[in-house]
Amino acid sequence: MRVEILNTGTELLLGNTVNTHAAWFGRELFKLGLRVARQTTVPDGEAIREAIESCVARADVLIVTGGLGPTSDDLTRELAAAALGLDLITDEAALRSIEAFFAARGRPMAEANRKQALAPVGCDVLPNPNGTAPGIYIPPRINGRSDCALFLLPGPPRELQPMVHAEVVPRLRALTGGALPAASIELKFTGIGESDFHQGIDARLAEIEGLEYGYCARIGEVDLRLIGGTDAIARAKEIALWSFADFLISDDGSSLEQTVIALLARHRLTLATAESCTGGLVADRLTNVPGASEVFTHGFVTYANEAKTAVLGVPAADIVAHGAVSEIVARKMAEGALRVSGASLAVAVTGIAGPGGGTPEKPVGTAWIGLAAKDATTTASQILQPRQRRDFKLAASQAALDAVRRALIAR
Amino acid sequence: MRVEILNTGTELLLGNTVNTHAAWFGRELFKLGLRVARQTTVPDGEAIREAIESCVARADVLIVTGGLGPTSDDLTRELAAAALGLDLITDEAALRSIEAFFAARGRPMAEANRKQALAPVGCDVLPNPNGTAPGIYIPPRINGRSDCALFLLPGPPRELQPMVHAEVVPRLRALTGGALPAASIELKFTGIGESDFHQGIDARLAEIEGLEYGYCARIGEVDLRLIGGTDAIARAKEIALWSFADFLISDDGSSLEQTVIALLARHRLTLATAESCTGGLVADRLTNVPGASEVFTHGFVTYANEAKTAVLGVPAADIVAHGAVSEIVARKMAEGALRVSGASLAVAVTGIAGPGGGTPEKPVGTAWIGLAAKDATTTASQILQPRQRRDFKLAASQAALDAVRRALIAR
Repeated sequence: MRVEILNTGTELLLGNTVNTHAAWFGRELFKLGLRVARQTTVPDGEAIREAIESCVARADVLIVTGGLGPTSDDLTRELAAAALGLDLITDEAALRSIEAFFAARGRPMAEANRKQALAPVGCDVLPNPNGTAPGIYIPPRINGRSDCALFLLPGPPRELQPMVHAEVVPRLRALTGGALPAASIELKFTGIGESDFHQGIDARLAEIEGLEYGYCARIGEVDLRLIGGTDAIARAKEIALWSFADFLISDDGSSLEQTVIALLARHRLTLATAESCTGGLVADRLTNVPGASEVFTHGFVTYANEAKTAVLGVPAADIVAHGAVSEIVARKMAEGALRVSGASLAVAVTGIAGPGGGTPEKPVGTAWIGLAAKDATTTASQILQPRQRRDFKLAASQAALDAVRRALIAR
Repeated sequence: MRVEILNTGTELLLGNTVNTHAAWFGRELFKLGLRVARQTTVPDGEAIREAIESCVARADVLIVTGGLGPTSDDLTRELAAAALGLDLITDEAALRSIEAFFAARGRPMAEANRKQALAPVGCDVLPNPNGTAPGIYIPPRINGRSDCALFLLPGPPRELQPMVHAEVVPRLRALTGGALPAASIELKFTGIGESDFHQGIDARLAEIEGLEYGYCARIGEVDLRLIGGTDAIARAKEIALWSFADFLISDDGSSLEQTVIALLARHRLTLATAESCTGGLVADRLTNVPGASEVFTHGFVTYANEAKTAVLGVPAADIVAHGAVSEIVARKMAEGALRVSGASLAVAVTGIAGPGGGTPEKPVGTAWIGLAAKDATTTASQILQPRQRRDFKLAASQAALDAVRRALIAR
């Protein structure tokens, strides 16, 4: 089944907004065993009609995003109907739910919003609980012109994504006659690279009947996606974990910071951070997780050497003797953060983010991670990730969070 | 001049990589007074040829990204030549520079890399100082088949972007016969919204002859882009600054954090941060700027109330009486950070990121910013930005950095 995505919106082509729809649909459709064959972006206006005409000539399913709002440049509904030779009429149920949306917010409905209830005869109006623009599903062969099924969806991700899960996925399953795979999971790993998977397990995964799989390598992370029957997935998961269980972040899509927060909560432990080269990124990532405040209490960004000494009690002599980026300083930072915060665990990271500051012995990309706990010996580990400044910070923050994860699963 | 972008790469359609090329080209071409008329993504392989054929039939300029690497699925070069009926020959200069790239890194050149030196006869090979894949420029009417000019560029942004500035932009200027605008600038503002510009200056900007302009609204920021003759730009900038000079972050594309770091360096001052709801994001943003270590010394993430008291000396009684999200606590956090760090300035932020924790008096989205300086009275300001957790953190970090900017430009 050939699926195409058509994103509409002048803002996407002016560069005001990065188009994240394309990647999101790629991942969601992969879970269903489907691929995006082509993705196109066109500006608001007549170009939409021409693009729909050429897409429906090639595709079995066309998903169109954007242009369903109330303003004069929101024309996707009208242009799709014109491209397929369909008439638009007001859908009374859709109109009532738009009116209800405004009533619930105590605001009057503008006249312009009425057109959002228009839909071609014989099509399904897809409810939008998160906005005023309902989606539209145009089945194939509705007027004999096209064998392509069309979905017209609102542009904002927080409106589009729930609509895809509730309304689009079931219709895609029906269109394929139930041929879509029964299940899919994503296993996230850290501390190993994509080549480890290729060398370690790829040949065995390839032998599993009814399994599709793919890797996605990010900074400090490899995601393994498995789709297929439940038996095939279970077998593949078993193979992956037999080799790489130690490196598993999650099997449910949870990020490393979500996993760390959940583990801390489960063990009723608290965490403090002491950061130099990551500059607050470890704390920032932890506090992106709702509920972080239950387990994360103190973060120290000791960027200057004097801060390491004055705030965390790292002996100035150690910094002079070994340098700020050293095993001993990483350990002392972690121990200092533990002592000052009173938390159960503390993680520290010190490294050279660059572009300046590297030496032959300690090149840009070097970092030491220290981990201290109330009831355990302090440990330290080193990474070397020579990358651009921001990517290095991400890699070092990943290593620091993983040190916490490993300490927690060992309990 | 109609410009289209064709991005190639299966990883873009599987969702492994978010396509940032489209937005980047939108912004870069806007500076030249050009628009992207359409953007298309296709997977590696034969689909590239078909897409090139349909793009060149519509466009005056087609920019193709990706698929110039050494592996068997890197076929853009071959498929573009086939689409246009051109023969590929080895470009000796390109081959020598690929050999030199490997020699400089002490690695042998693989046989597979030889094909990266292939180019159609009569085309320009575009040097790639940052990788092994040279770009290719195919002028219009090279074989009478197409009036479209083609650029084939490598996929990785750190290879592509310098090549666009060095090789593509001059050729685009030549193709338009010098009709492109003389200049463009971007003015970044914070603390005001897009509607302030519409009400305040839009009508006057619209009257300026030879000016194109556009707004880009981000969280806590509006970017005003001006393109046209130098006189038109100067006039527009004068109008914008007459109304909104107080809100100007930069007129050279610098981010708020870059501006703050530069102002601190110019005044030879140091900064400390004390963060609650932003959880380290303010420190993280500051330390993304190379050279931040010269002026940013200490960051405190006092997420728990006890941390605010124990680390920064915020009186527990103030927290009990006024709540952790209050003007007095923001002031005391800033003063505590100033005292503990010995920095010249300290900024503090405390707020309710949600989803939980809001009350009718202090809803989710409330934050207080405190600013303390060695030689000045502590000040505080409030924002209300009811957004999703991450977006609220971004908005609050923007307000905190802007408080520092305002204090520094007042000196």
